[in-house]
Amino acid sequence: MSLRRLAASSRSQVPPFAVMDILARVDALRAEGRDVVSLCAGEPSAGAPAAVSARAAEIHASGRPLTYTPALGTAELRAAIAGHYRRWYGLDVDPGQVAVTTGSSGAFMLSFLAAFEAGDRVALARPGYPAYRNILAALGCEVVEVDAGPETRYQPTPAMLDAAASERGPLAGVVLASPANPTGTMVSRAELAALTDWCAANGARLVSDEIYHGITYAGADPADSADSVDPVDPVDPVTADEHSPRGVCAWELDREAIVISSFSKYWGMTGWRLGWMLVPKELVSAVDALAGNVALCPPAPSQLAAVEAFTPDSYTQADAWVAGYAQTRQTLLDALPALGWGPAAPADGAFYLYAELGAQLERFGDSREYCRALLEAEGVALVPGTDFDAVHGGRAVRLSFAAGQAAVESAIERILRFQRA
Amino acid sequence: MSLRRLAASSRSQVPPFAVMDILARVDALRAEGRDVVSLCAGEPSAGAPAAVSARAAEIHASGRPLTYTPALGTAELRAAIAGHYRRWYGLDVDPGQVAVTTGSSGAFMLSFLAAFEAGDRVALARPGYPAYRNILAALGCEVVEVDAGPETRYQPTPAMLDAAASERGPLAGVVLASPANPTGTMVSRAELAALTDWCAANGARLVSDEIYHGITYAGADPADSADSVDPVDPVDPVTADEHSPRGVCAWELDREAIVISSFSKYWGMTGWRLGWMLVPKELVSAVDALAGNVALCPPAPSQLAAVEAFTPDSYTQADAWVAGYAQTRQTLLDALPALGWGPAAPADGAFYLYAELGAQLERFGDSREYCRALLEAEGVALVPGTDFDAVHGGRAVRLSFAAGQAAVESAIERILRFQRA
Repeated sequence: MSLRRLAASSRSQVPPFAVMDILARVDALRAEGRDVVSLCAGEPSAGAPAAVSARAAEIHASGRPLTYTPALGTAELRAAIAGHYRRWYGLDVDPGQVAVTTGSSGAFMLSFLAAFEAGDRVALARPGYPAYRNILAALGCEVVEVDAGPETRYQPTPAMLDAAASERGPLAGVVLASPANPTGTMVSRAELAALTDWCAANGARLVSDEIYHGITYAGADPADSADSVDPVDPVDPVTADEHSPRGVCAWELDREAIVISSFSKYWGMTGWRLGWMLVPKELVSAVDALAGNVALCPPAPSQLAAVEAFTPDSYTQADAWVAGYAQTRQTLLDALPALGWGPAAPADGAFYLYAELGAQLERFGDSREYCRALLEAEGVALVPGTDFDAVHGGRAVRLSFAAGQAAVESAIERILRFQRA
Repeated sequence: MSLRRLAASSRSQVPPFAVMDILARVDALRAEGRDVVSLCAGEPSAGAPAAVSARAAEIHASGRPLTYTPALGTAELRAAIAGHYRRWYGLDVDPGQVAVTTGSSGAFMLSFLAAFEAGDRVALARPGYPAYRNILAALGCEVVEVDAGPETRYQPTPAMLDAAASERGPLAGVVLASPANPTGTMVSRAELAALTDWCAANGARLVSDEIYHGITYAGADPADSADSVDPVDPVDPVTADEHSPRGVCAWELDREAIVISSFSKYWGMTGWRLGWMLVPKELVSAVDALAGNVALCPPAPSQLAAVEAFTPDSYTQADAWVAGYAQTRQTLLDALPALGWGPAAPADGAFYLYAELGAQLERFGDSREYCRALLEAEGVALVPGTDFDAVHGGRAVRLSFAAGQAAVESAIERILRFQRA
């Protein structure tokens, strides 16, 4: 037995998430018998569309061998995903440019490996989904975080990218999320076009995270009304003519963008680990070869069942869930004045409210301490903004309203009592 | 629309596999109505144990939401995997050091990120599984291939590692596969101990790929006979006292090794994308954080069903498949003299025969041309050795006998006819 102690690599030193401590404390409190309301999880709780589950059950009951599929997914599913782009966006997509992936996580890994060299600078908005920066950093890219606040709907703009490039050097890529996590904000078609133009002019690749498409609350385009959920009034609405009700796909504007999406959110299939990317022509062979080596293939049973996600009944079922999120979102927005928080991000889409804590900050110092105290006092679990924004996140919290109407109503009541105490 | 054409990154330039062209040609020939026997696929065709499929069917039929699990897998599955190490190897494994992964592919990605820096030198045997070197290269590691031929059972030795370190510089890691792909050869307990000692003395981390454990053909240890398959005579048997009949686990010798395994091979669950790693204590937090960022979690339905893999009935079913491979393997070994190939690797385990082509090389020049001609003439698909060994693989082919007895018998008959023609 040796005495050496080999250390973990420096590139594996991912900053810990505050939410992990909170979730551990939630478990401990529940083990003590406490009634805890958690608005932490970024996932729907209803499960997959019924037809998807039924198909999966049938596949497994048949006992058919579930062997490797092609690295980029089954031909049937790739064609079905291409059909989805025709249906929602009016886009012709070659199934040969659809890569099925192991969740959007798998798509980010493949995208970043295929598009960026080690040392390349890649910009993304702060606050943002922390895995972008952590995967990029693990792959040796230089993460360029650009501060995005209420004045730009928490989204990057060409001016911000110019400033970042001036300060840090040329950018090889830009990661955009619309609707975004944690803010839920969306870019309009004009804003997205400004960003694709900037990328074209600056030789940068846009990676467009569209995993929350379909979970949107802006006023629907009348021409698309049959497809859209009941519109609700957002805090600061993007007008209907500026973007399609499902979200604008980057490929409507730029086929050199990498588009990433997933079955996890709109279809509620987080645990199935199935996503996809639209791959620019010049990257297809690299993504194919990388996928075969780093993943072999996405999960076969998930792929075989997921073709049922694109049936009219499955869309209808998913849209009903979105209508439920819309109602819960409205409840939360209506409570904002009483909570005294602000500014809050507009929550155009996804199922998050990201809000600064207002006067509560003076009382608790920062959002981590606020979240800790709220959990102990009232059994409500929120994610402190520090997990999404290491610089300014101490002022904000993220609430997931995917937890449902009853959980959100109970949480509001408890938070109001906590803040009055 | 811009005129720029952004290229794929240099690190995504994975060498193409010859087998991809062969598989495409197999599809084309079958589409023309040709009867093709493919011995290319490195996967069993029987499917999962019945209890695993039944559990999966039940889970999906219930319609229960399949949400994210913890990044390192469900507590139940981690405990079940730890129990497997007690059962097969007599090892106490802390479930907290078991990381469930998205296939062994996911485990390799996490291992290499957690254990090695960009620029680190990592050694592996040539011939070998090409994804090791391709993932390492994509992550910026320097791949040090060491030539391993019949004289060392195609496995690396301390002397070879010394020579490699002298020539290239200190090694940060060594990847070992026993049973190996493409050769099927295994290291004995003494050989493995020599390698773990070398790693300890040289500050290198051993990554032990044990995904073919359980698919072994050496004489069984009498003490373990109840657990073992019917032994067959290997070409060059490793004696029973040198290793356990299931394979020696690196953790029997060194808890600083990373052990990687999978449900894909012994349990026949390739498409389910589920594997695991045993993680040295000092890497657990890094692997946990990386896993959450690069993968979120392994597929939930696969995890929930896979606990059924560790029941007596499932082991019995898998062992029956191994007995079937043993029979098919024997058929192939018996045919070697007539085929005139050699030297052939001993095929201690896994379901591959890796053999040089002997006199056929003079006729066809190299194994790629041999494979191409064989497929056209007789409709038999083999993998040329060049996919596993860019230097010497032109002399060899890999046959997978997981294709089954009938396929192998038909292939032998056709190959003999082809070689006589």
